[in-house]
Amino acid sequence: MSKHLQRDLEHIERELLALSAQVEEMIALACNALTEQRLDIAVQVIDGDQRVDEHEVLIEEECLKILALHQPVAVDLRRTTAVLKINNDLERIGDLAVNIAERAEQMRTYPTFPIPDKLLEMAEEARSMLADSLDSFVRLDVHAARGVCRRDDAVDLLNAEVISELREHMHRDGNQIEPALYLFSASRHIERIADLATNIAEDVIYLVEGEIARHRHDRMVNVAKN
Amino acid sequence: MSKHLQRDLEHIERELLALSAQVEEMIALACNALTEQRLDIAVQVIDGDQRVDEHEVLIEEECLKILALHQPVAVDLRRTTAVLKINNDLERIGDLAVNIAERAEQMRTYPTFPIPDKLLEMAEEARSMLADSLDSFVRLDVHAARGVCRRDDAVDLLNAEVISELREHMHRDGNQIEPALYLFSASRHIERIADLATNIAEDVIYLVEGEIARHRHDRMVNVAKN
Repeated sequence: MSKHLQRDLEHIERELLALSAQVEEMIALACNALTEQRLDIAVQVIDGDQRVDEHEVLIEEECLKILALHQPVAVDLRRTTAVLKINNDLERIGDLAVNIAERAEQMRTYPTFPIPDKLLEMAEEARSMLADSLDSFVRLDVHAARGVCRRDDAVDLLNAEVISELREHMHRDGNQIEPALYLFSASRHIERIADLATNIAEDVIYLVEGEIARHRHDRMVNVAKN
Repeated sequence: MSKHLQRDLEHIERELLALSAQVEEMIALACNALTEQRLDIAVQVIDGDQRVDEHEVLIEEECLKILALHQPVAVDLRRTTAVLKINNDLERIGDLAVNIAERAEQMRTYPTFPIPDKLLEMAEEARSMLADSLDSFVRLDVHAARGVCRRDDAVDLLNAEVISELREHMHRDGNQIEPALYLFSASRHIERIADLATNIAEDVIYLVEGEIARHRHDRMVNVAKN
């Protein structure tokens, strides 16, 4: 590998880590806005999305430049296309954090509705899975990546428990349907963040082992669900 | 452009169209399973996902081969990375069709619950947006791609109407909460299919004009929502 290619690859990987840190903070802030009923924090998350979008565009352009200038092959090619895909996933996670912040805005009309503890547990787990998946990428650590994939099922279980708790609120009191639906949406957004973190971890496994892990995992999960 | 590169690019684009046709059929079948309460059709969609996954892996490997062997630059490089991204989106749309089929399975316990007409209208619109986005890709037709982007807002509106209809059912009768929640999920899945079709159309605009359209659109939609 040429020194320039090495340097440019390290550069986009650092940029990717910075983007992930940005997105992780948005997830934490969106949950904060939800529990503390803070409109200012929700707005901060929503406004932050523009910086994420700009960052994503920058990284994508850098990847295309690397492909065009260095024409990498084998593992360097896979590293570059992995950055392209992870970059795309991070931008979508940013959008999901914005969606959670929007639900936090709506929940301010229902200040007494209890936010399920498990919803926040889920969000923290999804955020930590994201951080660990990026970490497994820069260290090319398949063992850590597999650990992230395994945690996705636990998040799905938490999601099912949150939904059942919300459903009970709706059954008990028709006036609770509105806020319960907002949290139902928030819960799905968090579940999707965990899914996307899992996608990233699967891309790491693919990068290192050259085999496509994601569908084997999908099928395992589907079998478990049915 | 070398003849071989031309031939290989045309080949993966044909494969991508075939994958899209497969996924479009899954969307139509999943809705069919929902309206006709046909478990056999739901199962057919769920089982079909494995073929989609295998097809996606194949296309991704072909893209990597093209990048490594032909080392394309400029527009050919963008065409290849566009296939990589669209391929990824199609696989996710396949997963969403499976999710709708799973909701159809659950709805069989509630045969008298009325499926909102607008839910089916939304699904048909999302499916047609997907077909048109792929069509705009192979014809590199920016005008058609922009048309797809514009239709996304109409789907978001339909989704809001479906949710409000379902919410009324829940308020009227506590026993309707369960099936209404299943359809609430189905509606979100359909909305996400339209979002992903829009992403594809935005990738086409980027490919042709070299500018990143998606975030401009995102911001317009966000402003409209707030």
